[in-house]
Amino acid sequence: MYRQTYRIRMHDTDAAGVIFFTSQLRIAHETFEVFLDSAGLGLGPLMSRADYRIPIVHVESDYRAPVRLGDDLTVEMTLDRAGQTSFSLRFRLLNTAGAEVGTVRTVQVAVDAGTWQKRPLPGELRNALTSNLG
Amino acid sequence: MYRQTYRIRMHDTDAAGVIFFTSQLRIAHETFEVFLDSAGLGLGPLMSRADYRIPIVHVESDYRAPVRLGDDLTVEMTLDRAGQTSFSLRFRLLNTAGAEVGTVRTVQVAVDAGTWQKRPLPGELRNALTSNLG
Amino acid sequence: MYRQTYRIRMHDTDAAGVIFFTSQLRIAHETFEVFLDSAGLGLGPLMSRADYRIPIVHVESDYRAPVRLGDDLTVEMTLDRAGQTSFSLRFRLLNTAGAEVGTVRTVQVAVDAGTWQKRPLPGELRNALTSNLG
Amino acid sequence: MYRQTYRIRMHDTDAAGVIFFTSQLRIAHETFEVFLDSAGLGLGPLMSRADYRIPIVHVESDYRAPVRLGDDLTVEMTLDRAGQTSFSLRFRLLNTAGAEVGTVRTVQVAVDAGTWQKRPLPGELRNALTSNLG
Repeated sequence: MYRQTYRIRMHDTDAAGVIFFTSQLRIAHETFEVFLDSAGLGLGPLMSRADYRIPIVHVESDYRAPVRLGDDLTVEMTLDRAGQTSFSLRFRLLNTAGAEVGTVRTVQVAVDAGTWQKRPLPGELRNALTSNLG
Repeated sequence: MYRQTYRIRMHDTDAAGVIFFTSQLRIAHETFEVFLDSAGLGLGPLMSRADYRIPIVHVESDYRAPVRLGDDLTVEMTLDRAGQTSFSLRFRLLNTAGAEVGTVRTVQVAVDAGTWQKRPLPGELRNALTSNLG
Repeated sequence: MYRQTYRIRMHDTDAAGVIFFTSQLRIAHETFEVFLDSAGLGLGPLMSRADYRIPIVHVESDYRAPVRLGDDLTVEMTLDRAGQTSFSLRFRLLNTAGAEVGTVRTVQVAVDAGTWQKRPLPGELRNALTSNLG
Repeated sequence: MYRQTYRIRMHDTDAAGVIFFTSQLRIAHETFEVFLDSAGLGLGPLMSRADYRIPIVHVESDYRAPVRLGDDLTVEMTLDRAGQTSFSLRFRLLNTAGAEVGTVRTVQVAVDAGTWQKRPLPGELRNALTSNLG
């Protein structure tokens, strides 16, 4: 499991006084980006050096309780599945009382950086996912 | 069915050269907002006058082909289901060749504006959904 | 002058009930993108075919009145100055009563797409700006 | 001076491969939000308890060098001026070599939370600004 904290900022919210629904997805993805950094596979360097990309092909997101400006969340990320050409991550967002306020699932597929065609999951990525998120 | 066109703008995209995954969800939601306007239930006036809110409690989104800056999309919105306290919408995003490049499903629940507790779907909203999106 | 209308959407707003301050800048830039489309210089095709880019190097934005969800704005764009290597645009945002609720000024510079070094303003762009926005 | 670090994330970038111009402004504002938290004046609690708001009435932003995905920035925030009813902040964004890649200036005004009319800068806010950012 990979765990990160996040405090809700003004730009995450909307006029209903809670977070705009896409913010939860962005926060989940940021957690994944921080994880990749920690595994030496940060997306910035990766886009320069690597011949693959890992676009998102599916997401699901559930919202169980209103999340407001200033709320502190813990984001827990786990590996759902690492397949031949794709992988799936699960995220739980917990408030300071430990209650689950939201969940996210993402599916990403490995593609060739040039042709954008599916390819096997790169070894470095599979290793990072399976050894750190088991 | 409700239908709208959208051209991808710079702010929708990311450094991978395609739209950031949350943009597809925002574009779907904008279509819903435009629909509500057309039905006389625009979210701006509604938040002043009405005693209910309709927060999103679930979304799903699939990405079937890369969508790039300047691409013209048609967004088709249909009613998936109108229940006692919630409703579900489906969105298809089509490119100019008519190919489906993405889909979105959203579930929204009616809540009291003050307590944020579930309540029956307001009649004006149910009517707008069932009479225009059947 | 180039003129466009825009209705404030949920994603433009924040928990203070008004538009998040960066939304005004994004709305101004969208107006510029739509203008470029109308002049046959849309940013999408341009990034594929052209050897130049036009990054923003300076912006200023003033907020004169609260702008809320559902508000209808007219955005008026004029050319402030077209120099050797850069150009400046002014935007006025007006509400339905004709009152100015905000202004934006942007400065963009022409650079080589490869080296990101300054270069003379391309003729096609200079023509589009001076013949349509005078 | 208040100082914070920030790593550029995918959602900050656009198809030109650099940060979208509004991201620099959002990053500056996040630094201010974190500062307010540290001073016990976090915007979340403030919006519940306080009878004032501090909307932005003016911003300026300069972009001196391309900033890319994964770049590490240091954001330095200083008080430019604390007036009777408004205050102004300056932000410098530095890369890891210490070069200034961007600057931001914001002006915020104190208003009554109900009427949105100008009011004197609250003492708690003036103290936080002048004692910590001198």
